[in-house]
Amino acid sequence: MPSGIISLLTDFGTKDPFVGVMKAVILSRHRAATIVDLAHGIAPQSVIEAAFWLERCFRYFPAGSVHLAVVDPGVGSERAAVAVEAHGHWFVGPDNGLFARVAVSGEVRRIDRDALGLPLPSATFHGRDVFAPAAAELARGFPFSSIGPLAALEHGPRVPEAERVGSEVRGVVVSVDRFGNAITNIGRELVPAGARVLAGATELGVVRTYSDVEPGERAALIGSFETLEIAERDGDAARALRLERGSVVVVRAQDPAAAERR
Amino acid sequence: MPSGIISLLTDFGTKDPFVGVMKAVILSRHRAATIVDLAHGIAPQSVIEAAFWLERCFRYFPAGSVHLAVVDPGVGSERAAVAVEAHGHWFVGPDNGLFARVAVSGEVRRIDRDALGLPLPSATFHGRDVFAPAAAELARGFPFSSIGPLAALEHGPRVPEAERVGSEVRGVVVSVDRFGNAITNIGRELVPAGARVLAGATELGVVRTYSDVEPGERAALIGSFETLEIAERDGDAARALRLERGSVVVVRAQDPAAAERR
Amino acid sequence: MPSGIISLLTDFGTKDPFVGVMKAVILSRHRAATIVDLAHGIAPQSVIEAAFWLERCFRYFPAGSVHLAVVDPGVGSERAAVAVEAHGHWFVGPDNGLFARVAVSGEVRRIDRDALGLPLPSATFHGRDVFAPAAAELARGFPFSSIGPLAALEHGPRVPEAERVGSEVRGVVVSVDRFGNAITNIGRELVPAGARVLAGATELGVVRTYSDVEPGERAALIGSFETLEIAERDGDAARALRLERGSVVVVRAQDPAAAERR
Repeated sequence: MPSGIISLLTDFGTKDPFVGVMKAVILSRHRAATIVDLAHGIAPQSVIEAAFWLERCFRYFPAGSVHLAVVDPGVGSERAAVAVEAHGHWFVGPDNGLFARVAVSGEVRRIDRDALGLPLPSATFHGRDVFAPAAAELARGFPFSSIGPLAALEHGPRVPEAERVGSEVRGVVVSVDRFGNAITNIGRELVPAGARVLAGATELGVVRTYSDVEPGERAALIGSFETLEIAERDGDAARALRLERGSVVVVRAQDPAAAERR
Repeated sequence: MPSGIISLLTDFGTKDPFVGVMKAVILSRHRAATIVDLAHGIAPQSVIEAAFWLERCFRYFPAGSVHLAVVDPGVGSERAAVAVEAHGHWFVGPDNGLFARVAVSGEVRRIDRDALGLPLPSATFHGRDVFAPAAAELARGFPFSSIGPLAALEHGPRVPEAERVGSEVRGVVVSVDRFGNAITNIGRELVPAGARVLAGATELGVVRTYSDVEPGERAALIGSFETLEIAERDGDAARALRLERGSVVVVRAQDPAAAERR
Repeated sequence: MPSGIISLLTDFGTKDPFVGVMKAVILSRHRAATIVDLAHGIAPQSVIEAAFWLERCFRYFPAGSVHLAVVDPGVGSERAAVAVEAHGHWFVGPDNGLFARVAVSGEVRRIDRDALGLPLPSATFHGRDVFAPAAAELARGFPFSSIGPLAALEHGPRVPEAERVGSEVRGVVVSVDRFGNAITNIGRELVPAGARVLAGATELGVVRTYSDVEPGERAALIGSFETLEIAERDGDAARALRLERGSVVVVRAQDPAAAERR
């Protein structure tokens, strides 16, 4: 059952009319759709950042929502246009790794333009010409099974997995938010109590929330989407520690001897 | 009577998915809500700027609207989560001064998680885990009187009052808008006809609208939210005069002798 | 027949509450309106950029939509406030060239405040005080013929036309998008097969889509709104070639001799 909600996740920014035109196309096909901007400030072309946020966020929407994700450096090339049914949600966008994680337990179909009555798309804006119409149709009840033939995704996950190396866990920064918090791919379960975190050239302790440290002080904490992030209270941790997307962050279990001395 | 409208005012920016996820949570509880972004570009952590705009803007919404304001440097600490009923509107957010002015003639309640059936919130994102659900419930008719116990706000107003010092009025810049207009806390009633304005190291006259001066020229005027602002026609006054949030602006009544010589 | 949709196109940006307050005003008059942000990142005061995008985008909305466009350097001066009916759509905003192209085949009326029961507007924010209420009224069925007296636009088109000079076509950059693509006013029909494009000090070939060149390589192509644009794959062409709004771009038909040698 569609919820009638369509979320939009792109790297288009909001200064240009590209997102607005996608919404116009959606409303032209499904006047009653409820459109929600999930985010448009994904770093240009960063499939990794988009895939990370998509996976972390889609469950906050009601079941039956359609998630239109367009970070599409390969637009106009041979990469496939796909729709995915998984976890009671639908996902629409290019097959470039965006959906590899959410699709693991789901079904993938290649979008068939003829099935949706779509004219030949432009060479550079499939968000408007293919993905927005497909999302609108799913949101208004067009059957997923008719949107095109079953397919396998050609691209695997793009968000790297944090990995254990000896007694350490190594991950990377996948997003830097507006406050300068550097958000990593290291899940809560990989951060033991008392762990120390190496980010940039700095070693940090793990606290519970921003206000657990003094203004201007930095710390690591488990962010609101359940991964490790590096923050500075009332400041910009990423700038201070020169962290950016791709920067390595290391978690070290507390030295057992030190733990005992407590 | 709820209008069904929920406005959002935050310092989250729009590049990240934080606002989108709050909307997802709202729609999960109240599918028919109409959500309006009031602004998300409040300077990070600036309760002052948010409180100023909230007070200036909420009356443009229909009575019965809910205003969700999240500028929350103290998230995860002991600061209270409150809902306010005042002027025929509701306000939801942290008790840190955001609502002190609008609540003067209203009623304040501390949000009771149990009343709303909310699980334990994350340590860093009460906008999503507490305030968005509370706003959704008020917008769909949950009685304000049941949202939690009556309370007094712990924090007073954060926007400083412009003050008279001898024959002068001294205020501060509370917001610099996209055009570089420096918007102050000095209300229209404090700016007499013929006044002179000192901003940065410059003295300016007061005009009626931007096009009353030549391109590139600067002037003071009463802005559209009824306070004094410093503007440059087709230019960026804040940059030119090095004004930023907190900069002092002084209004001087016209020298009576000079006025007579006219 | 109104579609009930109102698009917003402004140079207000999204950091301040100006767009949000316009939406509040719209919803106060027409609670069921569907409001779509077309774009708010038009360069401050750039009527050219706004007029270009408005003309290129409005047709993607359902017929009967209202397009509220506010780029208004002359606010508070004598410039007229107008509504336009053309191509089955309505347009509302200041008469400063924004609507000159779309109005060619339509009807223009000067907005009569009395007809809409509007109080005296502020001197600096007619988007809120005049245009938003007028758009809301048109969207809820107020007859266009009653909105004010027939009028002629006082300002002609602001977007310059690309022109043929000998064997060349000369145009200008009208918008630089978030990706650094420099979008020109040179329509597809002015770019012959095999043409060469001069942009900045660089000569470029014309390709079909971004991924037709190697990462970091630059090319010209026909963008998704049917005009020539200069792009860099996975990069920022405008920065690399020092192109900005107003920069000249020249199209040269391929040297016939060179074409023959192929």
